Parts: sequence; structure tokens; C-alpha cells
Amino acid sequence: MLLARKIAYWLLWPLLAIVLAPVSLAAEDPLPSWRDGPGKAAIVEFVARVTRQDSAGYVEPHERIATFDNDGTLWSEQPLYFQAYYALDRIRDMAADHPEWKEREPYRSALAGDVKGLAAQGKGPVVEMLVAAHANVTTEAFTRSVAHWLATARHPRTGRLFTEMVYQPMLELLEYLRANDFKVFIVSGGGIDFIRVFSHERYGVPPEQVVGTTGGARFELRDGIPVVVKTGDISLIDDKAGKPVGIWRHIGRRPIFAAGNSDGDLQMLQYTTVARNEDDTTPRLGLIVHHTDGEREFEYDRESAVGRLDRALDMAPEQGWLVVDMKRDWRRVFPVAGS
Amino acid sequence: MLLARKIAYWLLWPLLAIVLAPVSLAAEDPLPSWRDGPGKAAIVEFVARVTRQDSAGYVEPHERIATFDNDGTLWSEQPLYFQAYYALDRIRDMAADHPEWKEREPYRSALAGDVKGLAAQGKGPVVEMLVAAHANVTTEAFTRSVAHWLATARHPRTGRLFTEMVYQPMLELLEYLRANDFKVFIVSGGGIDFIRVFSHERYGVPPEQVVGTTGGARFELRDGIPVVVKTGDISLIDDKAGKPVGIWRHIGRRPIFAAGNSDGDLQMLQYTTVARNEDDTTPRLGLIVHHTDGEREFEYDRESAVGRLDRALDMAPEQGWLVVDMKRDWRRVFPVAGS
Repeated sequence: MLLARKIAYWLLWPLLAIVLAPVSLAAEDPLPSWRDGPGKAAIVEFVARVTRQDSAGYVEPHERIATFDNDGTLWSEQPLYFQAYYALDRIRDMAADHPEWKEREPYRSALAGDVKGLAAQGKGPVVEMLVAAHANVTTEAFTRSVAHWLATARHPRTGRLFTEMVYQPMLELLEYLRANDFKVFIVSGGGIDFIRVFSHERYGVPPEQVVGTTGGARFELRDGIPVVVKTGDISLIDDKAGKPVGIWRHIGRRPIFAAGNSDGDLQMLQYTTVARNEDDTTPRLGLIVHHTDGEREFEYDRESAVGRLDRALDMAPEQGWLVVDMKRDWRRVFPVAGS
Repeated sequence: MLLARKIAYWLLWPLLAIVLAPVSLAAEDPLPSWRDGPGKAAIVEFVARVTRQDSAGYVEPHERIATFDNDGTLWSEQPLYFQAYYALDRIRDMAADHPEWKEREPYRSALAGDVKGLAAQGKGPVVEMLVAAHANVTTEAFTRSVAHWLATARHPRTGRLFTEMVYQPMLELLEYLRANDFKVFIVSGGGIDFIRVFSHERYGVPPEQVVGTTGGARFELRDGIPVVVKTGDISLIDDKAGKPVGIWRHIGRRPIFAAGNSDGDLQMLQYTTVARNEDDTTPRLGLIVHHTDGEREFEYDRESAVGRLDRALDMAPEQGWLVVDMKRDWRRVFPVAGS
């Protein structure tokens, strides 16, 4: 009887192993939304090189700095940067007190709801409009205002909350890097105070690891309560050549990994990946999200007013930057079901 | 025989416990350089309140933000801010190319080695001189220059390396807070790029957790190598009302603990400890290091040109800020033996 049990056990065990194997393998894949291919392989190989103690490319955990652009890299940016929709709503609220706005761009396009006209202004003026629209607002009031908007406003095409339009494969990449002791930062042309409102909950990135376009601020006592008040000036436009400056200001060292999707990320990719000299043999990876999927998301690159990807796309091969083809490389785009 | 062993064991055990107890207790003191007293007790009680799950004042680990001033709080600042000695050495190196400096303060005092004259200029002009003296220097070259200076320059009175003049009790406090899942930041009126060179090795604070007076910077390709170059302008003077602005810019939320030693930390202490409203019941602690020990360090407060402590000292009782008396509360001041 006992022997019979033993035999049954030893017969059953291999069958169990076979049955369970696929499950456990699937559970081990840190990037399930990434299709197997050169892109996914390059990411996994890079992480293995910098984390394996016996690897020539081993990097100490505290030097494993990774920077991610936000608009078009972690969430969508079409037909207009999401923060611009927030600005439009605020500008409309405030227009009554500012008749001069009817004549001035980008306010005129904003009030007319002319998205194309706004997009044509570029990111700088739109962000400046946003910053100006919030002069004399305390940081607490601004945070409350953005949180309320994110909880209620909907994307004009998908009807989804904007925070539902983050990219599932990139959420997995953020988590995969953190699981390998990377410290992950957002380095965005968008407003630093805007992104901080949702970065921790949505991306697992705490406010102190968000770098972005930064408005001026001043300290005040209001009725004896110490507050920081946003002023109308701009301290840093964290886009293009401003990104390495923002990285230096906030992080104080070069990343070894950077991800972007537009020419606005070109200098960040250069700063992260170009070797200083022959002794600089640290493994470095630059990643570009290429918006090739018009069905599941949006299809655009060289001609787009928002998130134009032109020079960086040309330079990618010689620079060894990994170009991720959203249509080919991603099993799914958004976290919501059926996307 | 077996019984005899058992009896011996049960007799021996309590004796062992008694013998070992004092050792284990001593090993448990996280602040051995702090004398037992109300100051040490207040710190330990605050940490217990915010970390005990069952405490009404429990604070989630990611909200446990602590900010420390540097000059006079983590290391000495007399007879002149240590960074000013670095500036003096650089200014002397560069004076030959700048005849106009002989007529202009603070350069004139700097070249004359007139420490009193320099101190009279205040921190702002001295830092501005330092920033100007490094226009067009890459961040890499600046870091190398500071590292070399810190490894060789000596304090005019003690003859020690400047990094040997950090305060042992504060090193223990930094470690104690980190061991209780606090995220520790430096928020200093000194130069952010200067402090970052030694903050990780000396304080265990990585560069991305250093906030300080910040010069402008620009991105460049030099012979095809991407570099960040320090410019002559100033982006933030992280002193007095500038400290809450720097905290917001870099951290994006209010600390629950702040430590300083001068009126330059007054607004940081207010921003950290003053409750917003009746619902704001989070435990908060403000700490002021009072320089009362002329024998082991330096004795100064209301009349000092460097690190003046006047208004904040008057406000401490009503604000509930903990004033640490270096002479009374610290068993030792410096890590080096016999200090």
C-alpha cells in the first residue's frame, strides 16, 4: 500500500511538473505585454549585463539611474499633450477676467478650442500659458485642481480617463527596472507639478523622482500658514537641450538608461548613451517608442506637430538606440481590457 | 545525568541573560554620541510615534521626508563657510586673468584673504562669486576640482580635512532616521554641485537627494561629447525663503522633520512644522543645532556674521522646535578620536 502510494507519487510528479511548467514560466516573464523579439531581448540582455556581479558591465545599484520621458513614452500625447487639455479647461474658467486673451496666441486658439492651432504653437508656449494661468496659486491648490481634473476629465477620442491611457508595456518596464535595483525618474517636457499629482499612484514614481518643466515659486505666510506659491515665470523648460540640464539639476549624475519618443528626447538620449572616452565602458541603453499603431493608439512621427520624431529616428541606428515598434513589439498598449 | 544537565541549563540560563543584557542594550542605542536627556528623548519619541503602526501619528514610509541643512548643522561653518575656502583657492588661481577683481567685493576681500571682510558680505555674494568663478566649466571638471580640493585642503584652525569636521551625533541621526525608513535630504544654502561631491560618501545621501543653491547650466556637444556646462547665472539661492522653494522644486512635498542651525533655516522649519489646519495632525519635528561649545567646536549665535541664529532662537519655544545644546547634549562632536 505504502509502496503503491510511492509509485503513484513518482508517476504523478513528472505529469504535474509538465502541467505546471507553462504557468510558472509565464509568471517568470517580467515583460508579458512585450512580444518576444530583438527589442525585448535587448532590454533583458542590458539589465542582465549591469546586474550580474560577474559581468564586465556590472553597475553598482546606486548608479543604476533610468530616466523616462512622459508624453508619448509613458502615456499618449495625441491629438494634444494631455496637460494642454487641463490648461484649456483652466483657461476657459479664467477667460472672463482676461479679455486680452482673445487676441493673443496660444490663448486665442485655446479659447477657440482650436487644437490644431494650439499644437502648431509647440510645447513651450502651451506650457508657458499653463504656468501663467497658475500664477499666485499655492502648490496645494494646484495639486487639488489637477487631482480633481484627472478624476473627471475624459480623452476627446477614447472617452477614457487620461490616466487610463498609460502604456501597459512601459508600466511593466518601470517595474522590471525597479525590481533590478534601478532608481527610475521621469524627465518630461510637461509640468513637474502636474505629473507629480499622479506619478506615484500610476507609475510608482514618487514626486522627488519627477523632473519636468518648472515654474518659479515663492514662499509666503498666508494668515500665518507657510505656503509655496507658484509664480508666472519659468525656471526650466525641461525639453530638448533642457533635459540634460534638468537631469543634472535634480539627479546630479548621468543615467545609464533613457527612454523617449520624440526629438525632444534627443539630447537626453545623447547625454545618457554617448561614451565620454575609451575608459567609459559602462553599458548604456537608449530606447525610442515609435508610434506605429494607428489602430490601437496613434500613428505619427516625422510630420507630427505633437511629439515629432525625425532627427532622433535618423540617428538611432548609428547611435545604437533601440527603436520600439508599438504595433510589432507590444502585445497590448493600454492596461484597460481589450486594448 | 540527563536531568542534571537540564537543571544546570535552567539555572545557567537566567545568569546568562543577566550577563548579556547590558551588552545588548548598549548595542541597541541608535544615538550613542547623544547624552541622555530631553533632546535625545524628543527625537526617539518622535520617530516612535511616526513609525508605530498602532500610533495615531503613524506616517507611511514614503511620506517620511527629513531635510537637513549642511553648514553648521552637519559640519562646521566657522570661521567661514567651508565652500568659501574652496572659492578663495579657485579665485586666487584665476586672479591673474581678472585684474578688475582687485576693486570688486567680494573678490577684493577674497584675494586679500580677508576672512572677516568676506564674512561681512554674507552667504549670497560669496556663493555668487563661486558660481561666477566656474562659468563655462563642465560639471565633470567641477566635480574633479572639488574632490581634489577636499582630499588635500585643511581647515585653518584644526588642520583637519574639512570632511573630518562633520558632526558624529548628526551622522548617527541621519542613519537612525534611514533605519526607520525616512528618506533623508540635504537642503543647504551651499552649492548643490559642491555638496554632491562628498554627500554620498560622508553622509550616505546620494546626489539626487541634495538640494542647494543652484547655478544655471546648459547642454553642449564638445568634440562630439555631450556635457553639461555650468553658466554664471543663479537659478536658486537655497537659503531663508528659498529653502521651501528648493524643497518644493526637488522633493515636491512637505518634510515631517527638518534640522538647521541658523536664521537661514527659519522658513524651512516653519514650512515643515506649522500645521495647515485642524485636520493636519501629522507629527512634525523641527530641530536647531545651537553652537554653545567653544572648546570642542565654535561658540556663536545672535552676533555671528556666519550662521547667525537670532530670530529662530527666539521663536523656538513657541514653535516647539527642539534646540540642541552642543555642549550639553553631545558626548562627542567630531568622528575623529579625542574630539
